[in-house]
Amino acid sequence: MKLTDKSFAEGILFTDMYQLTMAHLYFRMGLHEKTAQFDHFFRSYPDYGPHKAGYCINAGLEWLIDWMQEAHFGDREIEFLRQQTGSTGQRLFGDDFLAWLRQHGNFGGLTLRAVPEGRVVHPNVPLTAVQGPLAMAQILETPLLNMLNYPTLIATRAARISHAGRGQLMMEFGMRRGQERGVNAGARAALIGGADFTSNTGISGVLGYDPKGTHAHSLVQLFMALGEGELAAFRAYADVYPDDCLLLVDTINTLESGLPNAIIVFDELKRKGHKPIGIRLDSGDLAYLAVQSAKILNAAGYPEVSIVLSNQLDELAILQILAQIRDEAPRSGLDADHVSKRLVYGVGTSLITSAGDAALDGVYKLVAVQEPDGWVPAIKISENPAKMPNPGHKTVWRVYDERGLATADLLTLDDENPAEMNPLVLQHPVDSRISRTLAGTAVSHIEPLLTTVWQEGKLAYELPTLEQIRQRRRADIERLDSGVRRLIMPHIYHVSLSPKLWRLKQSLIENFRKS
Amino acid sequence: MKLTDKSFAEGILFTDMYQLTMAHLYFRMGLHEKTAQFDHFFRSYPDYGPHKAGYCINAGLEWLIDWMQEAHFGDREIEFLRQQTGSTGQRLFGDDFLAWLRQHGNFGGLTLRAVPEGRVVHPNVPLTAVQGPLAMAQILETPLLNMLNYPTLIATRAARISHAGRGQLMMEFGMRRGQERGVNAGARAALIGGADFTSNTGISGVLGYDPKGTHAHSLVQLFMALGEGELAAFRAYADVYPDDCLLLVDTINTLESGLPNAIIVFDELKRKGHKPIGIRLDSGDLAYLAVQSAKILNAAGYPEVSIVLSNQLDELAILQILAQIRDEAPRSGLDADHVSKRLVYGVGTSLITSAGDAALDGVYKLVAVQEPDGWVPAIKISENPAKMPNPGHKTVWRVYDERGLATADLLTLDDENPAEMNPLVLQHPVDSRISRTLAGTAVSHIEPLLTTVWQEGKLAYELPTLEQIRQRRRADIERLDSGVRRLIMPHIYHVSLSPKLWRLKQSLIENFRKS
Repeated sequence: MKLTDKSFAEGILFTDMYQLTMAHLYFRMGLHEKTAQFDHFFRSYPDYGPHKAGYCINAGLEWLIDWMQEAHFGDREIEFLRQQTGSTGQRLFGDDFLAWLRQHGNFGGLTLRAVPEGRVVHPNVPLTAVQGPLAMAQILETPLLNMLNYPTLIATRAARISHAGRGQLMMEFGMRRGQERGVNAGARAALIGGADFTSNTGISGVLGYDPKGTHAHSLVQLFMALGEGELAAFRAYADVYPDDCLLLVDTINTLESGLPNAIIVFDELKRKGHKPIGIRLDSGDLAYLAVQSAKILNAAGYPEVSIVLSNQLDELAILQILAQIRDEAPRSGLDADHVSKRLVYGVGTSLITSAGDAALDGVYKLVAVQEPDGWVPAIKISENPAKMPNPGHKTVWRVYDERGLATADLLTLDDENPAEMNPLVLQHPVDSRISRTLAGTAVSHIEPLLTTVWQEGKLAYELPTLEQIRQRRRADIERLDSGVRRLIMPHIYHVSLSPKLWRLKQSLIENFRKS
Repeated sequence: MKLTDKSFAEGILFTDMYQLTMAHLYFRMGLHEKTAQFDHFFRSYPDYGPHKAGYCINAGLEWLIDWMQEAHFGDREIEFLRQQTGSTGQRLFGDDFLAWLRQHGNFGGLTLRAVPEGRVVHPNVPLTAVQGPLAMAQILETPLLNMLNYPTLIATRAARISHAGRGQLMMEFGMRRGQERGVNAGARAALIGGADFTSNTGISGVLGYDPKGTHAHSLVQLFMALGEGELAAFRAYADVYPDDCLLLVDTINTLESGLPNAIIVFDELKRKGHKPIGIRLDSGDLAYLAVQSAKILNAAGYPEVSIVLSNQLDELAILQILAQIRDEAPRSGLDADHVSKRLVYGVGTSLITSAGDAALDGVYKLVAVQEPDGWVPAIKISENPAKMPNPGHKTVWRVYDERGLATADLLTLDDENPAEMNPLVLQHPVDSRISRTLAGTAVSHIEPLLTTVWQEGKLAYELPTLEQIRQRRRADIERLDSGVRRLIMPHIYHVSLSPKLWRLKQSLIENFRKS
């Protein structure tokens, strides 16, 4: 795509066509500037099979705000809409609507309350509440979902992979396997969720991180084609990067060629006063090869160099590798912990695509409309009660138990304050028979989750640094019960309604059924 | 991301860091301008489980070329690399290398031969052969894979979904579920592979297609919240779009509310001389609801309006829906074909993410280096013979049998011409015992697959229009054996080597083993 086309394709028309046809209809009906509230939330955790996620990490907000600040209807956008015709050749959009869009078609009238990036989040909890003129809030639906769903999916996967790796360094390597330019958002989300670095050079520069990487098989192949071989390739690498020498040892044969050659080069470096960094294994039985490599490296006097693993890693592969190392290391006379603690993980496809469940089902639903005498709740009736969005102008709280662990997220109407409810009653969102009552002593802290980030078209929030976002993720994950945090068959975290919100929902459903 | 950062993150540093550290090493060794050939190919078809793909549709080339035309090392890129330091704080990249990059760090010296977009392609066949100075060919690896892997994956999935829908209109609706800006590349690839339209407004504008879409549940919800209800929402829609009236009928209850209300509005439209377009079903048992809706619409005098299906569709869901309609339509007194032929498919998540196998495993391998006396083949030894890339400076042909159907793709060395080989011997790429001999009479046509698209830094190819690319895809799919084309358990298409290329590969392996 040419650059001029790119700015068009990624501008305000980066939305689904039906948002525009609906906005036009609202305009025609005089409803376009009516104040509405849309809630953005996801319905279920990423489901990779037996290892369904038990929590998500919220991500994407900053770049959404950046986009909202720039997006507007310029001449080219208006002209494109002017040319849109229906089945009989008549124009779809009237000139009066286009004139309104040209003048008012930006996000200046909206207010967003949102859960900050890096926070642990759960299904059916509003992560973003958008409030403002109906037409523009409607047009925002697609870009908002596009820019929040994917980062949240990837930050979540990164948190899981990092958890499996027990805090060892983890690098995002998936640029070549992701969805074109989307990999930049993926790399940022991976850093939020648990990756420590990415190989993606440009985005590292933007985010202020050092891009990471060493060399590929092609370096060794090149030297082989030139009649020189793996050792010459390693020597060349060590010559150019004597203090950053990390060698990919599996181009020919890991244990018979790559590792012995690497040790020759490491010895040469050591004699010159440099400290070798490590080796990378990118094929074969990674657990077996890690143990054998560790043994050989120890014997050669390199018990400290890193062993980087890559090739089809995800949280289960890492769990399996660590389990196998616990079994195999002692048989090779090694301490399993010592082997595990020198590992570094390079994770590609599984992370950048969230392989196994490649999309988060985030939705954006109309929940209330403002009338002169207050907010009128909106509801979508569904034959499946679990799919009925929670209606009304509302807000969200996180309740911590006496251990200081998060025990439930609570949705209330906007004028309720759970700190004043004692005992605190947590109503199941669907099943009327299920509720939970927490005595005041069982609650250590109640925290509002939504922050006003964008008010009347302006940033109303100090954007945290990526490091602060990462810190928030670590803190939130530590406050999860270990049953919720675990990778396989996690406990279900409670997302509840206040009794007042629950009664509102029920009365809307009953009123509807009677009508 | 701010726009200035975006141009940096999507410029020439849109690559993996190790490409740059390797390029620097080549520079240091005086190898950076040595001419090399890298082949881009994928190793296996997308594997969704029992319905593994039997062919792929090549896509992405035009946007890769657009990117190559713009990408270069400007001041900001050079400054960023200057700041990169290694483990002991020393700079990673020398000033002489950075000066070289500033002056020569673009793709002006490369030549690309490629399979055109829209063509059917198979594993291990070079889809792009990149030839030119080693350093820049190396830096191109990541962006090339990024910009070709994903579009090919999506064009392939679109072809399958379109095939399942038996030529009925199919629309791409997945913008909110894909990887951020990558959805634009996904929408284009979907159009190449078989989608007829996309809901993505901006990219439709860029590509010259009409964006498609009607309305969401929120329109009905809004009117309900305002105390007016579904019928009022439908009437508003019909007022604004009398000749494009397509109504989403499942917000409340499809058969009891949505459809009766739609018919009231259709009748009103008809009295005013307008022709209603159709209904959309987005939940529930789509096959059952399609049959019941068709029956009700027929009885109301609307046997021609479309029934758009959406909600979690993919090729298997569509197969199942059509099978169920074949069973259920006659029981409702309907002709199953008449029901099927009024269906339109709106496909979201499964298409834009290629759910089930969310990445194509395309790779980019050094296959030859040019020395004064000719091309020297490069090989990567692997314990798994199927993973050894086919070496050498070579090219690709497609062989058509006496029925005019594609029967094999043949890789030969560049100086071979299979038209001169009679009989034609097709050697299995791995197993020496398997070869196939085609007499001259069994071959109707042999076609070279690679075209020079980029030569010495300039476009050397008339870029086809999207419609021409779509036409090419249709023509290529028609020339596939139906066993290869089928959705479930397809036949394996043959990708073979010429005996000369096969012997070269074997001799390289043997030489290597002896050394």
